[in-house]
Amino acid sequence: MTKTTQPTSSQADNVTMSGDGLYSLVTVGAKHVIDAAYPMVKAALDSLNLDHNFTFLDTGCADGGTSLAMVGKLIKAVRQKSAGLPIQIVYADQPRNDYNALVKTIHGLTPLDSYHGKHENVFALFSGTSFYQPILPAGSLNLGFSATAMHWLSRKPGNISDHVHAVGASGKELAAFQEQGRRDWETILLNRSKELKPGGKLVLVNFGKDEQGRYLGNTGGINMFDTFNAIWQSFVNDKTITQEEYVNMTLPQYYNTVEEFSAPLLDRNSAVFASGLRLDSIETRIVKCPFAEDYKEHGDAEKFSREYIPTIRTWNESTYFAGLSTERPMQQRKAIIENYYETYKKMVASKPKDHAMDYVHSYMTISKI
Amino acid sequence: MTKTTQPTSSQADNVTMSGDGLYSLVTVGAKHVIDAAYPMVKAALDSLNLDHNFTFLDTGCADGGTSLAMVGKLIKAVRQKSAGLPIQIVYADQPRNDYNALVKTIHGLTPLDSYHGKHENVFALFSGTSFYQPILPAGSLNLGFSATAMHWLSRKPGNISDHVHAVGASGKELAAFQEQGRRDWETILLNRSKELKPGGKLVLVNFGKDEQGRYLGNTGGINMFDTFNAIWQSFVNDKTITQEEYVNMTLPQYYNTVEEFSAPLLDRNSAVFASGLRLDSIETRIVKCPFAEDYKEHGDAEKFSREYIPTIRTWNESTYFAGLSTERPMQQRKAIIENYYETYKKMVASKPKDHAMDYVHSYMTISKI
Repeated sequence: MTKTTQPTSSQADNVTMSGDGLYSLVTVGAKHVIDAAYPMVKAALDSLNLDHNFTFLDTGCADGGTSLAMVGKLIKAVRQKSAGLPIQIVYADQPRNDYNALVKTIHGLTPLDSYHGKHENVFALFSGTSFYQPILPAGSLNLGFSATAMHWLSRKPGNISDHVHAVGASGKELAAFQEQGRRDWETILLNRSKELKPGGKLVLVNFGKDEQGRYLGNTGGINMFDTFNAIWQSFVNDKTITQEEYVNMTLPQYYNTVEEFSAPLLDRNSAVFASGLRLDSIETRIVKCPFAEDYKEHGDAEKFSREYIPTIRTWNESTYFAGLSTERPMQQRKAIIENYYETYKKMVASKPKDHAMDYVHSYMTISKI
Repeated sequence: MTKTTQPTSSQADNVTMSGDGLYSLVTVGAKHVIDAAYPMVKAALDSLNLDHNFTFLDTGCADGGTSLAMVGKLIKAVRQKSAGLPIQIVYADQPRNDYNALVKTIHGLTPLDSYHGKHENVFALFSGTSFYQPILPAGSLNLGFSATAMHWLSRKPGNISDHVHAVGASGKELAAFQEQGRRDWETILLNRSKELKPGGKLVLVNFGKDEQGRYLGNTGGINMFDTFNAIWQSFVNDKTITQEEYVNMTLPQYYNTVEEFSAPLLDRNSAVFASGLRLDSIETRIVKCPFAEDYKEHGDAEKFSREYIPTIRTWNESTYFAGLSTERPMQQRKAIIENYYETYKKMVASKPKDHAMDYVHSYMTISKI
């Protein structure tokens, strides 16, 4: 069953607007996704037998802003459970992440309200190690968390000749992404399994396909990834980019189905199962696109287009840019990318009802026996 | 007794030049200081009874480049002592430090050669918490380290009316810095004491005054801080800056004497002593200014001035800049600062033998009983 979460103003209240509010706008949807995971995180905490400390790990944390309120609630819950227990909150991402932004967010040096400094005996630590590697010593982790991060593959297993994303792939090209997704998911789980203490838990909130085949930006109506693809295809047609550049523009992502997420945790012959990880629960949820929802209220198509494009741009721009030939002068490459998002923005402004980036996630709780 | 270390080419060899070599030039002296501490770090390691892991903390680490080679040697030594032991290397600095540079340095994404990824079971973690606060849970630290950082006070206890640094202060102004230095040193030690496991060690390498009253840039010949002061005083005289701005240009630093460093560790009535910290050893050392030493070889005064000023600029520019009135346009403030370093550079180029920033440190090993 897929639950649908409507963003409410109370969920958004915890995000303080910074400067022109762009930060909050770009990340508010991802924050809704994490806020919706709190009951699972709380239930996982309640199940733990804590001894001399509590260690929490947020992998793929980016600048830490989207999980800040959730972690703040978690810390209060740990304090209720055990007044004096040392709490370690470890944030991990890949080494080229923006750690200056992350440290400032957690230490309360941005307009976002942080838990840091409000409690005794809470220690924030940061790691530059990706979730494809061991981040913490074996047997040291009580509760691992990750949201909207593990769809990024460890490598691009190939290009997709007629689309920009595996959701539009077929045949051998799709098979290569499926296989990479399977291996990467196993690698992630085995690394976390080693870090977890016996009885420890993982709460993982990952982009995926739900039971009805829905996924990010494809929940009825026009498929967002098909829009991505159509614009690049039109750029080939008008010779803005070459066919080779189009093919290179393949996002290194894979969206697992519920079955694919569950498989290594249920298969008694898998290395993951042998390591002691067990699936407690999995359910898919849709969190509605906050910008499309806002548009229903305000009805301003231009405003919608202005808010909608940046949230997409944060995560696909670097892949598209890298697809462009380095033989083009840098300025030309930048102009093509600007042209892409400008074209997209105009499409949104002219037909706003055709656009929405609803989030589709699998919410999982996993135990280490 | 003050030992004098001459930089040798073999010590500098471990620093790979990046780009124009500025990075290495600016920090090579601080690296020599840390390299000279390795025997103490190794001896401290040898004294430890390690159980299920080894946790090392480098506080005031900046971008981590100056301690990189030393930490690499330490990790090899831990591996010889215990093949499979998990090793946690924790880097801490204040939250406005450049964590992007730090993470990239440790993860080997700069030209500097890093230990990271060369050993199994080594975990680098980063903290945005200063050494005036608790960085790690109580009783979790085996070996704490810090180099050339703890002379920065937690606050400026006042301005110095006729100098830029406490080394030139007198009377009540000096007393305020002495008292702040005493309190801050106690705060630092109490925080580390709580973090240390019983039997754990601290190796602290701090700027200070040696038994002959020598300190950074004042080891015979012209006193570097008097040069700093003389230029600013000349800027008052020619009305480039106001008297008020001159007075505001007070560095929030204090250089403890050997007696001041030792006092709370020897005084049976102190909170530090009561917490279980004991002074194993303290000795002062001079590490010669690498740029002045190089000048003796190459004899190029212009080259010396070009290399010498940036290493000073890294640590005093922000204080000087903050001393300037915010009523001045930003561009004017920047121009004054440029003028200051340009004036200084010309002084060095015209009388190179009057300039050298020899390092004077107290090297301490401290035990937690």
